[in-house]
Amino acid sequence: MLTHSALKGSLPNRFRELWDEIAPIGRDAGSGGYLRYALTEPERTLRAWFREQADRRGMPVAQDGNGNLFAWWGDPAAGDAVLTGSHFDSVPHGGAYDGPLGIVSAFLAVDELRAAGVTADRPVVVAAFVEEEGARFGVPCLGSRLLTGEIDVDRAAGLRDQAGTTFAEALGEQPAGADPALLGRFAAFVELHVEQGRALVDLDAPVAVASAIWPHGRWRFDFTGEGNHAGTTRMADRRDPMLTYAFTVLAANKEARLRDAHATVGRVSVEPNATNAIPSRVTGWLDARAAEAETLYGLVEAVRTKAADRAGRDGTALTCTQESATPLVAFDRGLADRLAALLGAPVLPTGAGHDAGVLAAHLPTAMLFVRNPTGVSHSPAETATDADCAAGVAALARVLEELACR
Amino acid sequence: MLTHSALKGSLPNRFRELWDEIAPIGRDAGSGGYLRYALTEPERTLRAWFREQADRRGMPVAQDGNGNLFAWWGDPAAGDAVLTGSHFDSVPHGGAYDGPLGIVSAFLAVDELRAAGVTADRPVVVAAFVEEEGARFGVPCLGSRLLTGEIDVDRAAGLRDQAGTTFAEALGEQPAGADPALLGRFAAFVELHVEQGRALVDLDAPVAVASAIWPHGRWRFDFTGEGNHAGTTRMADRRDPMLTYAFTVLAANKEARLRDAHATVGRVSVEPNATNAIPSRVTGWLDARAAEAETLYGLVEAVRTKAADRAGRDGTALTCTQESATPLVAFDRGLADRLAALLGAPVLPTGAGHDAGVLAAHLPTAMLFVRNPTGVSHSPAETATDADCAAGVAALARVLEELACR
Repeated sequence: MLTHSALKGSLPNRFRELWDEIAPIGRDAGSGGYLRYALTEPERTLRAWFREQADRRGMPVAQDGNGNLFAWWGDPAAGDAVLTGSHFDSVPHGGAYDGPLGIVSAFLAVDELRAAGVTADRPVVVAAFVEEEGARFGVPCLGSRLLTGEIDVDRAAGLRDQAGTTFAEALGEQPAGADPALLGRFAAFVELHVEQGRALVDLDAPVAVASAIWPHGRWRFDFTGEGNHAGTTRMADRRDPMLTYAFTVLAANKEARLRDAHATVGRVSVEPNATNAIPSRVTGWLDARAAEAETLYGLVEAVRTKAADRAGRDGTALTCTQESATPLVAFDRGLADRLAALLGAPVLPTGAGHDAGVLAAHLPTAMLFVRNPTGVSHSPAETATDADCAAGVAALARVLEELACR
Repeated sequence: MLTHSALKGSLPNRFRELWDEIAPIGRDAGSGGYLRYALTEPERTLRAWFREQADRRGMPVAQDGNGNLFAWWGDPAAGDAVLTGSHFDSVPHGGAYDGPLGIVSAFLAVDELRAAGVTADRPVVVAAFVEEEGARFGVPCLGSRLLTGEIDVDRAAGLRDQAGTTFAEALGEQPAGADPALLGRFAAFVELHVEQGRALVDLDAPVAVASAIWPHGRWRFDFTGEGNHAGTTRMADRRDPMLTYAFTVLAANKEARLRDAHATVGRVSVEPNATNAIPSRVTGWLDARAAEAETLYGLVEAVRTKAADRAGRDGTALTCTQESATPLVAFDRGLADRLAALLGAPVLPTGAGHDAGVLAAHLPTAMLFVRNPTGVSHSPAETATDADCAAGVAALARVLEELACR
């Protein structure tokens, strides 16, 4: 077991101290949430902070050709490194913990191991992946997808943010794409993340190990009708796509509940979006997730059928386009069971995508979840207690010790 | 009756010739609709064109202190002038006819009278009112409201567009507000406008006279819930304001149909509006109109009650705010009957607001509607045939002759 002779204060206090260093960065005073989009000023400040933290610990930092940062404890040329870390970027007005908790916890876990006098037999590497949320360039896990070659490098380079800036321009260079040499140096990846639901609240446990990521996808529903004057057009003469959209939102909710799945319409775009005009077009994005692919596709098909039927009644037209689909990610079963036994922690699936989900196809990968009392994520209300965060650091330290130091 | 000895070509051809001069101004190549927001470059180009047309006809132009243009045929100092004209500005991607038809027809009607050798005993004045649609600064009929003192001048001056520019900045001066001296020079106002529904199609008539503008208003429905992660939040744990919004859209449609009224939700705003986030807030704007105020307020109250009930079931909160309300405008009955008899035209109510609706409280006011084969307005599909537009010009010329030349 670890001892803490060389460290000052309790682990929760040390967590709080480091956490407070980054808490103000990119916080929106109005919402209390974070605007830490990839490669914008707040996220660059966090990247500079990452280099500083690594420097303090004598861990050399290398940025790969795709914008991902790696801080090495141990010889970067040695093989079988154990990779940990997460991402800094946020969704619009996102919470503080989603991403940064995994990076802060990784540095503190290294401190724990060193203070306990543990020697790493294999390198331990702390990573900060770029553009995990996809909030700026539209593709989630962009950094890990580039590293693993799971996205075409030219497509990634040309992705544009709302201002028209490409990912390559924001990065300051053409991304390098797949880097099998770098990837080959890692023997395992363990990502610690705040839980994004209430399972650990219900289980009364601070930390869990992930079993799988639900299959999920995004579907764009384009409803077209006839733009017209809101004041003068008789109800019977209308072809109003807002009605078909509204019906579809309620249908998606109902169909998801029937299947114990998740369906969300959180984004909508309206033309012309004027108070006194019947819209000519309404576009809604359906985010759907379920434990099995069959359930997921059954759900989407049921929503599509109901929407098309309603479009017929409204005199509108529907086009449904699948924008992304991610199959079930089953994390390495042996690794998950080993870590759960080591920590005495429950094993849980999740509905959220992560860089760990991308890397899982390339190397043994595990995730640790830290309890979130609100269960809320992608929102300023996302939180975790210092005690639970400290439990997460301790758990991660034990895992790194298990994987790198024995 | 009029003769056309001094004019070249048929009236439909002369209409088309003048119409083609302005057709390209502010047209969006993508939608085919118009982006002619008040005091932006396309609308300024139209204002310059207005001055040119007035110059060609020897009609001196004066801009009042509120951004409205007036071209005078006759002595501006003489009283009892007959005012006609309309507005140049459009809704986003609006049609070509809504507004400009009234101005083009006014100049052509003056040509008709002069060619017929008619002498105006009282001045005939062609007006171009500023910001009729409210598409840039949010308040419709801003120019006519300022002229008549129906809006506080400081409030109007401070209205901002989406870029943060105030109306006063766009105008280049502090608006002057109520101008009773100018208003007092007008004995009547007649606005010609494209019909924004299909009544004239059904009646098989090219031109109608307006009886009234339905009472109407705008209500903002703010639905607040709990922003959360779309992938990980169980359906039962959600407080999703998009559901309450969607239900309210359908309820408004149903309640309007039950009452032979009009209800439209054509504008929505979502926070954070991300595909993978349950929204924290959805705001929808209800545009409601009905033949009588009692029906209108009954409709809005029914929608509000249903929305509040659904909010209770969704765990969301609702705030409903009346943003504007315009009571019934009954146009001068004697004038409408006189013009209808003169033209042999039907008399119709409308659901749309107009500068004529504002001026009706201050001087005898009438409106002429020109048939719109599609019935569509506030959309690129809005149209009128050259023959019907010519019929509109001829009707307006007869009305001006009746009011100013006898």
